[in-house]
Amino acid sequence: MKNPVMILNKPQMGENIGAAARAMLNFGLTAMRIVCPRDGWPNPRAIDMAAGAFDQIPPPQIYTSLAEALSDLHVVYATTARPRDMIKPVFTPRTAAQDMLAHQNAGINIGLVFGSERAGLNNDEIALCHNIITAALNPDFSSLNLGQAVLLLSYEYHSAANQALPELGEHTRAPTADHKTMEEFLQRLEMILDEKGFFRTPELRPTASRNIRNLLMRSQPSDQEVRTLHGIVTALSDNKKSH
Amino acid sequence: MKNPVMILNKPQMGENIGAAARAMLNFGLTAMRIVCPRDGWPNPRAIDMAAGAFDQIPPPQIYTSLAEALSDLHVVYATTARPRDMIKPVFTPRTAAQDMLAHQNAGINIGLVFGSERAGLNNDEIALCHNIITAALNPDFSSLNLGQAVLLLSYEYHSAANQALPELGEHTRAPTADHKTMEEFLQRLEMILDEKGFFRTPELRPTASRNIRNLLMRSQPSDQEVRTLHGIVTALSDNKKSH
Repeated sequence: MKNPVMILNKPQMGENIGAAARAMLNFGLTAMRIVCPRDGWPNPRAIDMAAGAFDQIPPPQIYTSLAEALSDLHVVYATTARPRDMIKPVFTPRTAAQDMLAHQNAGINIGLVFGSERAGLNNDEIALCHNIITAALNPDFSSLNLGQAVLLLSYEYHSAANQALPELGEHTRAPTADHKTMEEFLQRLEMILDEKGFFRTPELRPTASRNIRNLLMRSQPSDQEVRTLHGIVTALSDNKKSH
Repeated sequence: MKNPVMILNKPQMGENIGAAARAMLNFGLTAMRIVCPRDGWPNPRAIDMAAGAFDQIPPPQIYTSLAEALSDLHVVYATTARPRDMIKPVFTPRTAAQDMLAHQNAGINIGLVFGSERAGLNNDEIALCHNIITAALNPDFSSLNLGQAVLLLSYEYHSAANQALPELGEHTRAPTADHKTMEEFLQRLEMILDEKGFFRTPELRPTASRNIRNLLMRSQPSDQEVRTLHGIVTALSDNKKSH
């Protein structure tokens, strides 16, 4: 399945082109096209800002008109700061990602168009596209820059494309100790607390010991951690080295 | 409902602090804290890069240590480029947003910690946090910058907050104690363990104390539970009633 093509239309600052490349490659996107870059191409500021991304993607293709840059694409999405009075489907970044994947599964080449920093896309440019993508932003401060817009769309595409993959679980740690191991620790702790007079009255004991159990079991200690807990209890209750 | 607090730990470039503020405010987030900004504060480059965001949010609070910046927060998420071998729950930006909202619905103050551009967060800094957030990136190019990381998390929080509120589920228990309360307990425990000779060698001490911290913070104890832990330590280390 081909990557969606990211098309920067009349970008002004090289830094933003570099930030866009960096954003794309973080999410595995590698196809960039640039229409009429204000400061020409290649642009050293773009290279600086890309953190090496341009070494790992095909060279961006440069065009002199948006229509030309879109000529081999089948379905194109215009990104805009707010929905326009144009009669096109409007997607959020997330719903657009689903739509993009559905089209790609049908073997279709898709592209996303990003406007210039100052003015975004004008109505003629949007008219070249099939769909509009608008992110819901703070109505009092809607100011995503070019690199940030490319980042969000790349992220949503990547998330949708990898959805079948398992989520990162909570399993970077050692497995939880078995019940018997934890039980032995809790019983030892309770016995020593009893000897030390922790449980003020016999009536309070069941509740207090349940609270301790809840607290410690909630963290699902591993075997190594249960050994650490044993070590703490041993050290704390050792009179020989006391202060 | 309070905004999550975004904590920039030892940021280097003012530009990135400005990009972070701009990213936050686009998604309605306004609470920024900065720990030891390399170039001091205020920083003209940050102001330039923020596109006016600093005029619309409260002034960032400046701290000299991460622990101090977290002291009034209850549940804290560390953002890392890849999951570490640390024993904490690992979230994606999207699953973290759900978890954040569930905590906030329970009246809890939450924070997200972002590391410095060069090195991210070290293990001691991550140990101060309850959870880890890692975005799935291109394994051959994992290079989100600070502003981009803040953007993704702000975006996911905003997207989740504007959907139906998640049910509380497992969070029907008392709220997590704030960071300062837990910190006082951990420091007391460590001091007594030190006196009792728990740490065999000075070299082992940082790792051992990080392991204890990870284990206890993972269960996100409530105020009452921290008092129980204090009571256990007092009882265990009391010589008078020993066997």
